[in-house]
Amino acid sequence: MAICNQSPFKTLTLPSPKTLFNTTNSPIPNFQSIKCNTSLSCKTLIAEPEPIFTSVKTFAPATFANIGPGYDFLGCAIDGVGIAAISTMKMLGIKSIGLSLILDKGLPLGSGLGSSAASAAAAAVAVNEMFGGRLSVSDLVLAGLDSEAKVSGYHADNVAPAIMGGFVLIRSYDPLELIQLKFPFEKDLFFVLVSPEFEAPTKEMRKAVAKEISLKDHTWNSSQAGALVAAVLQGDLSLFGKAMSSDKIVEPARAPLIPGMQGVKRAALEAGAFGCTISGAGPTVVAVIDDEEKGKEIGSTMVEAFFKEGNLKASATVRSLDRVGARLVGSEPR
Amino acid sequence: MAICNQSPFKTLTLPSPKTLFNTTNSPIPNFQSIKCNTSLSCKTLIAEPEPIFTSVKTFAPATFANIGPGYDFLGCAIDGVGIAAISTMKMLGIKSIGLSLILDKGLPLGSGLGSSAASAAAAAVAVNEMFGGRLSVSDLVLAGLDSEAKVSGYHADNVAPAIMGGFVLIRSYDPLELIQLKFPFEKDLFFVLVSPEFEAPTKEMRKAVAKEISLKDHTWNSSQAGALVAAVLQGDLSLFGKAMSSDKIVEPARAPLIPGMQGVKRAALEAGAFGCTISGAGPTVVAVIDDEEKGKEIGSTMVEAFFKEGNLKASATVRSLDRVGARLVGSEPR
Repeated sequence: MAICNQSPFKTLTLPSPKTLFNTTNSPIPNFQSIKCNTSLSCKTLIAEPEPIFTSVKTFAPATFANIGPGYDFLGCAIDGVGIAAISTMKMLGIKSIGLSLILDKGLPLGSGLGSSAASAAAAAVAVNEMFGGRLSVSDLVLAGLDSEAKVSGYHADNVAPAIMGGFVLIRSYDPLELIQLKFPFEKDLFFVLVSPEFEAPTKEMRKAVAKEISLKDHTWNSSQAGALVAAVLQGDLSLFGKAMSSDKIVEPARAPLIPGMQGVKRAALEAGAFGCTISGAGPTVVAVIDDEEKGKEIGSTMVEAFFKEGNLKASATVRSLDRVGARLVGSEPR
Repeated sequence: MAICNQSPFKTLTLPSPKTLFNTTNSPIPNFQSIKCNTSLSCKTLIAEPEPIFTSVKTFAPATFANIGPGYDFLGCAIDGVGIAAISTMKMLGIKSIGLSLILDKGLPLGSGLGSSAASAAAAAVAVNEMFGGRLSVSDLVLAGLDSEAKVSGYHADNVAPAIMGGFVLIRSYDPLELIQLKFPFEKDLFFVLVSPEFEAPTKEMRKAVAKEISLKDHTWNSSQAGALVAAVLQGDLSLFGKAMSSDKIVEPARAPLIPGMQGVKRAALEAGAFGCTISGAGPTVVAVIDDEEKGKEIGSTMVEAFFKEGNLKASATVRSLDRVGARLVGSEPR
């Protein structure tokens, strides 16, 4: 959740990120918001858009990137929220209006659930909504990408679903081409998110992935990626689970860096999960299921397995697919 | 087209491929059929199924495998037909009945249009239909795979669509798992097939593909594979064309082995094709379009480009997607 406020000072230059954000930690997992307030400068230029609110409150969901064989190009939003504010302001052509943002950050950093992307998404949407929602979804993703590039690399597989909701495939970056994959509305999809008390830095997890892949593994993983996309569009959770669990490139390299991961995955599948893999660069492990209660049982089994197989304490939550993405959740008209 | 006949001799052992097939060449491209006749042995065992026809005629379509980034796991059937007969007979448990097959082979060998797969598909379906169609589609593909393994390698990306029709993704071989991707029925999809007078042996084309792939190219191609699947299921020909044209691994390695290929691709895209790549291991080049007349124009442009850029004579045909696959086209009841 993010709150964007009118800043108490008037400015003609872009405020620096430090003056722009107030970050507070909240114990609520899987949730971020931004409140954005604005002050209109007396020197507003004609070409500059005017804010239509004095305060907006936005939300952006957590995200599950990679999804096994979808490494670096496929992600989805998890029900449950920004540095992208400056890029968004630049895109809107705003120079004379000061903004302050309060970030209510509910996602822990380094969880593999797209914490930085959720912040970026919430901030970008907050600034955009403040000025009447002039920017396209692609522009917002580009603004979020500017932020992600500084934090975890130029990857849109978290920030695109955080902004757009549902499943998003990034076909290209130059130009940015995003493909929204609609999971059938009438079907249920739940993510069992199990986060161990263990720090798995994104950079080290990235280094673990080999730079050279065999043609055989490439062909295998590409076919799983294709199957994953077919599973989403056809609403076939059994196929989705098999494809997400079948990565032969990234997961086998990263799993040994998360104590107990392989045992946790085995436990999840034995408990009835359709599939299980690492979320993003970990250490959160995600299993998928079509029933919330069954999801809770699977979560308990996975928490037990983390303790038994990896000697790690862990906590489990069951969340559904977020089909909406970053959105306005409150505003004060001018 | 394949014709399966009652053999004039009675046998208690499996006939050898040589005695089983009569192969004739036909000038009709993109088309194969098998006629299958049968003779019932006087020693038929109770467990053995009985033929329900004395003669069947089957057809199997040509196929377009790889489709750019779908290397070795994605193929589709082209409107327009077997060694798999023995495997099919084994699966049916037939030991005491002799079959003769006449193959009316309309596809040139080594065209990249799945000639051997079409023959295998037509033969497998002919034998199966002769005995009342007891085998599943998966079994027929496995029978076809036995045949393909002896000819061009253990790959189902031609034989699966030749049997099933439409687009087929092979997710795994052990066990065999095939995913049928339904292209929307209300949409038109035409393939412009341009075959140069040039022999490109499958084995050499296969050798040209690197055995080690960079992580960057792997990620790129996997995302294109996902996009290709999404494009088929969503009926988005523009996306289909872009994804099929964006292979950074196989096509760039093979294209230089087909004189003029790059110029032909450029010409096709400039003439309005949504996408263009090599069919299978070539040398046939395939472009896609949504209108038959437009397809003919694109074909002429590509033939000209083959002559101009590669000094090769070529011929073009425009065919639509075959949504049915190998089928019975005629039979004589017992």
